[in-house]
Amino acid sequence: MARNKHPEETVNLILDVASRLFMEKGYERTSIQDIIANLGGLSKGAIYHHFKSKEDILVAVTDKMTEESNRMLAVIRDRMDLTGQEKLKAIFKESIARPVQDEIFKVAPNLSTNPRLLFSVFSETVNTAAPDYIRPIIEQGIADGSIQTEYPAELAELIILAANIWMNPMIFDDSVETSYRKFMVFRQMMRGFGLDIVDDEMLGRLQELSTIYQKSK
Amino acid sequence: MARNKHPEETVNLILDVASRLFMEKGYERTSIQDIIANLGGLSKGAIYHHFKSKEDILVAVTDKMTEESNRMLAVIRDRMDLTGQEKLKAIFKESIARPVQDEIFKVAPNLSTNPRLLFSVFSETVNTAAPDYIRPIIEQGIADGSIQTEYPAELAELIILAANIWMNPMIFDDSVETSYRKFMVFRQMMRGFGLDIVDDEMLGRLQELSTIYQKSK
Repeated sequence: MARNKHPEETVNLILDVASRLFMEKGYERTSIQDIIANLGGLSKGAIYHHFKSKEDILVAVTDKMTEESNRMLAVIRDRMDLTGQEKLKAIFKESIARPVQDEIFKVAPNLSTNPRLLFSVFSETVNTAAPDYIRPIIEQGIADGSIQTEYPAELAELIILAANIWMNPMIFDDSVETSYRKFMVFRQMMRGFGLDIVDDEMLGRLQELSTIYQKSK
Repeated sequence: MARNKHPEETVNLILDVASRLFMEKGYERTSIQDIIANLGGLSKGAIYHHFKSKEDILVAVTDKMTEESNRMLAVIRDRMDLTGQEKLKAIFKESIARPVQDEIFKVAPNLSTNPRLLFSVFSETVNTAAPDYIRPIIEQGIADGSIQTEYPAELAELIILAANIWMNPMIFDDSVETSYRKFMVFRQMMRGFGLDIVDDEMLGRLQELSTIYQKSK
């Protein structure tokens, strides 16, 4: 392949190849060399011009997946036919139901050994997911009477941190059994806040994802 | 000062000087050069022999503080005169009441810009505080009837992560007002788990700490 004149195309090519390899071989077993070998003649220098490390590439890959996920969150947030509590339930359901989650869990990086990636998931959750998606939904729920709290911003943050970080099998390297137990504690926590949004279908799907992750490691 | 022959003494000296400076000037405003200038002739090379960066020194300083804190947790865990739920309350009370907390909050690193430090607090919480201190207390509570849960390990982890990470004003750079609001959500969460362990005295103390932090920044 000829050298690409457009840097954003080069970046996209690197990310596409890297995410395919991460999914096929797993993140830990994919080397920068593997990525280069699949770039059809793009030089090592070209990669390092855009990314300092393999971890850097993974952060960019997950950022792209997060952008997609955020578009889905926005659609649910802006629906007119659901109460706040129903939207919260729809978001959790959709978030784990989407087929792309299978792919994410196949990448299977162990985030507990990747501080920068953990930090990136953490920052995105606190700076984007909580204030831009979950908080407005909770405020809608307060207005329509389906959610009771005086602290929508803080409740939004606690819920989404628990879901994105604590219940993320890639961060905690959880077994299927531990994922189930966390899910049960999360359900109890949500009920304590008067939110009955976690059902058995979600539980089944979450166990499916943690099985995929454990197999891909 | 003569060159120190015992490496652990050199390390302790660096940590003592660094933590004093961090407390006096704040972490962000203390440079490696400031630390060297206060080491009485110890060379720059000697520092870099033990620590790769200022962040490295901060991680070591907080590790030392954590060791102290863990000794306090162990004393409460092993008391014979309290129920599990009472111990949980005692731990939260003691953790924020201790005068050393004033010092920690004076150091005032902004953890949201220090990925390694966030990771270190996170790992310590998950790998030590939850399994070695909080989980055994919850198990005692199940045995004595003061705590109801089928998932002691997971409940322990969720509670202590919320307390150590989410309610930590150094990680979230929270205002005094936001700290108060998080505390109220945390209290509601604990009550949802049947745990009435958060009282107004703790609330007052937490606001005191977040005031110290905001002033020290």
